[in-house]
Amino acid sequence: MEVSKENFPEWYNEVIEEAGLVDKRYPVKGMHVWLPYGWQLMRNIDEYFRYIFTKYNHQEVYFPLLVPETEFKKEGEHIKGFENEVYWVTHGGTTPLDVKLVLRPTSETAMYPIFSLWIRTHADLPLKIFQIVNIFRYETKQTRAFIRMREVHFFESHTAHATAEEAEEQIRENIEIWKKIAKKLALPYILVRKTEWDKFPGAHYSIGAETIMPSGRTLQVATIHQYLQNFSRAYNIEYLKEDGTHDYVHQTTFGMSERLVGAIVGIHGDDRGIILPPEIAPIQVVIVPIITKDKEKILREAKKIKEELQEHFRVHLDDRDNYTPGYKFYDWELRGVPLRLEIGPRDMENEQVILVRRDTFEKIAVKRSEYISKIEVLLKEIQENLLHKAEEEMREKIKEFDDLEDVKNHKGIAVVGWCGSYECGEKIEKLTEKKIIGIPMEKRKGRCIICGKETDMMAYVAKPY
Amino acid sequence: MEVSKENFPEWYNEVIEEAGLVDKRYPVKGMHVWLPYGWQLMRNIDEYFRYIFTKYNHQEVYFPLLVPETEFKKEGEHIKGFENEVYWVTHGGTTPLDVKLVLRPTSETAMYPIFSLWIRTHADLPLKIFQIVNIFRYETKQTRAFIRMREVHFFESHTAHATAEEAEEQIRENIEIWKKIAKKLALPYILVRKTEWDKFPGAHYSIGAETIMPSGRTLQVATIHQYLQNFSRAYNIEYLKEDGTHDYVHQTTFGMSERLVGAIVGIHGDDRGIILPPEIAPIQVVIVPIITKDKEKILREAKKIKEELQEHFRVHLDDRDNYTPGYKFYDWELRGVPLRLEIGPRDMENEQVILVRRDTFEKIAVKRSEYISKIEVLLKEIQENLLHKAEEEMREKIKEFDDLEDVKNHKGIAVVGWCGSYECGEKIEKLTEKKIIGIPMEKRKGRCIICGKETDMMAYVAKPY
Repeated sequence: MEVSKENFPEWYNEVIEEAGLVDKRYPVKGMHVWLPYGWQLMRNIDEYFRYIFTKYNHQEVYFPLLVPETEFKKEGEHIKGFENEVYWVTHGGTTPLDVKLVLRPTSETAMYPIFSLWIRTHADLPLKIFQIVNIFRYETKQTRAFIRMREVHFFESHTAHATAEEAEEQIRENIEIWKKIAKKLALPYILVRKTEWDKFPGAHYSIGAETIMPSGRTLQVATIHQYLQNFSRAYNIEYLKEDGTHDYVHQTTFGMSERLVGAIVGIHGDDRGIILPPEIAPIQVVIVPIITKDKEKILREAKKIKEELQEHFRVHLDDRDNYTPGYKFYDWELRGVPLRLEIGPRDMENEQVILVRRDTFEKIAVKRSEYISKIEVLLKEIQENLLHKAEEEMREKIKEFDDLEDVKNHKGIAVVGWCGSYECGEKIEKLTEKKIIGIPMEKRKGRCIICGKETDMMAYVAKPY
Repeated sequence: MEVSKENFPEWYNEVIEEAGLVDKRYPVKGMHVWLPYGWQLMRNIDEYFRYIFTKYNHQEVYFPLLVPETEFKKEGEHIKGFENEVYWVTHGGTTPLDVKLVLRPTSETAMYPIFSLWIRTHADLPLKIFQIVNIFRYETKQTRAFIRMREVHFFESHTAHATAEEAEEQIRENIEIWKKIAKKLALPYILVRKTEWDKFPGAHYSIGAETIMPSGRTLQVATIHQYLQNFSRAYNIEYLKEDGTHDYVHQTTFGMSERLVGAIVGIHGDDRGIILPPEIAPIQVVIVPIITKDKEKILREAKKIKEELQEHFRVHLDDRDNYTPGYKFYDWELRGVPLRLEIGPRDMENEQVILVRRDTFEKIAVKRSEYISKIEVLLKEIQENLLHKAEEEMREKIKEFDDLEDVKNHKGIAVVGWCGSYECGEKIEKLTEKKIIGIPMEKRKGRCIICGKETDMMAYVAKPY
């Protein structure tokens, strides 16, 4: 890397290409090509989504990309929120379509007409499904790899329940699932409840998982929405209750996206490149043979090591002929492989290998007789260390203030007292040139930083991506 | 199933919904909702694609869905072939786009501008990539689940090579890969070379893998294309040769789609429902407890069996309370689970289970001490039996004729002599009301059924989907 991470926006822009995650030269703004390494990382995350949501009794489905205008426009708030940022398909071949089609910006309007056919009685509830698809938004703001794109790799779960209580229970379950995902990805976060004017269009309320990037700007990496009956009324998703009467179902959703990759890159990387959490790294251990003599013998040994390790880990042997070990070290550090294994003539003599941690650069000589268990321990330690370090850094960036000028200058999340009124909220945002990204999930006493009223509500103020 | 498979089109239409593969009620023609069971089947096939193509040194990537009109129109033949069947995105929000965007009907035009950036010298070759995506075609013909859709789940591999010989070698490798896929899916097929007027738009030549559905109509389930330099010239994909001169790369592609699911459904199913080849079945063994007494004891045992088996197979325990065993048998036969395992009080006494094959309905009592190895053997036998039976049936439907009236009436593939001229080809198609779906991969002597000329070419004549 030629750019230091101190210069975060430039560093971020360069590292995602240099590490082989995406190619940004695709000739449509906000749409990138996923390279094999980046796509494998994304797919590892997808596989974890599949694993964890299946464990929580969700089933995977696939709904069409294209939504007829007629269905799209059924929920008023929702369409108002999206009408300026959807792509419209108007022609098939040279023929204008009778009904225009929208490229899904999210799938409520594709799914819910079908939910109303699937759900008949209380026995059909709860319904819990998810899909992993790409969504499309005609972003007019500046686009940025993984963070603000026009084609976005997306996860969405949708649930339907008999009662509001069960839908609330689902929100708690979604938070529980999110905690597991954040741990798997080694991402620190805070949960916030979105303000009324910032919640998902059509939602009763929205919860966001927010992380902080090295620039001090916040990144919303997951959203959990309580819809109650807002959509089921619009899409007529009714069920027969046990007592013979009918009611509309209560719905929730949970969305995540390739932003998670952006967060991993931004939060864990350093001046040498990205650093991938072992749990989701496409390559967990890269083997670099150090060939000063006995080339054939060393290569044979390196291959044997690969065969031994690949039963336990995701391993790659870098046996490229025309590159020096130094070049290879540089290359795999750039790409963030958590652990490097070096094997040279002296190591062979001593029946050992050298392990080098990507997070601390610590070098450890390990006997071959115990190297598998040592690697297992080290990968766990790296995973924990990345999360721990990131949590510390995030904690330092969340501070309480009672002066608006300090809020304005703070790089991170400022916590201030807020009476909860739209007027005071608007003033906070205007005077700090930031946004209220949400309020804490739990109440806390204080005074509104604008009107001075006593309040049990705080506001998180930050500059979000 | 209320409809017999004798009445194939109706049977097919019903079974795909009754077996839980798709829901056809999505409000856009030619676009269906994939239900969990159908989507799992498709994803199992996708996983095999990933496995086999990775083994053959292909890497998975993801290119954007939307292709700018300017890139789309670069290869003349290609655009002529597709311009009437692509969807056009013309607006972002309410803003007309400066450059209209096409929804990929296939990804040549999205990928090749980037290939020209990736490929610089001979050291960058060969390039072998694939992606698994959905493609979009504005079909004006009658749509049919899996077979002719407007949104299609699609596999595409793209390769680039230094020489024409290496590109030809890739075609041979693609055929080798296809043979493995066909075996995995238990699909019979013949390989044909497409006629000049039926080859892929822009290709030098095209090879199709054709199977025959119970209706006697043929279904093209895979296509392998040799492009040579047709696209590399249009997209300027040049490389520096070892001798210092430049040349355009030589390209091939390999495409498959959800049609494979349609073929599996159509070819292996029977009057009771679909029959899934064990290698790709979402559920390989379904456990049905037979509860005449000792409910708790039987259920406990069924759970124990599930735990034992799931280490080795994809297993489901149907412990639904309010359904009879008879209903469950019917249900899982409809969904094509290859093997049913029954466990009741008598079986527990005898330390045995009852296994029932979906393909032959054979009932086999097996001792618990050896049931894992027995299930393994049975699943292999079912896989082989399905393929074998289907191959037999397909062979019977391929016949040589020297009378055009017989060709017209034949349900399947008619083989006739053909001089290879467009004129005679056109006459064959007109007089039989069928198509020449291709010519054999090897030469064979005969006489043209139209002009009587001696020829070393035959034509396969059939009614394709």
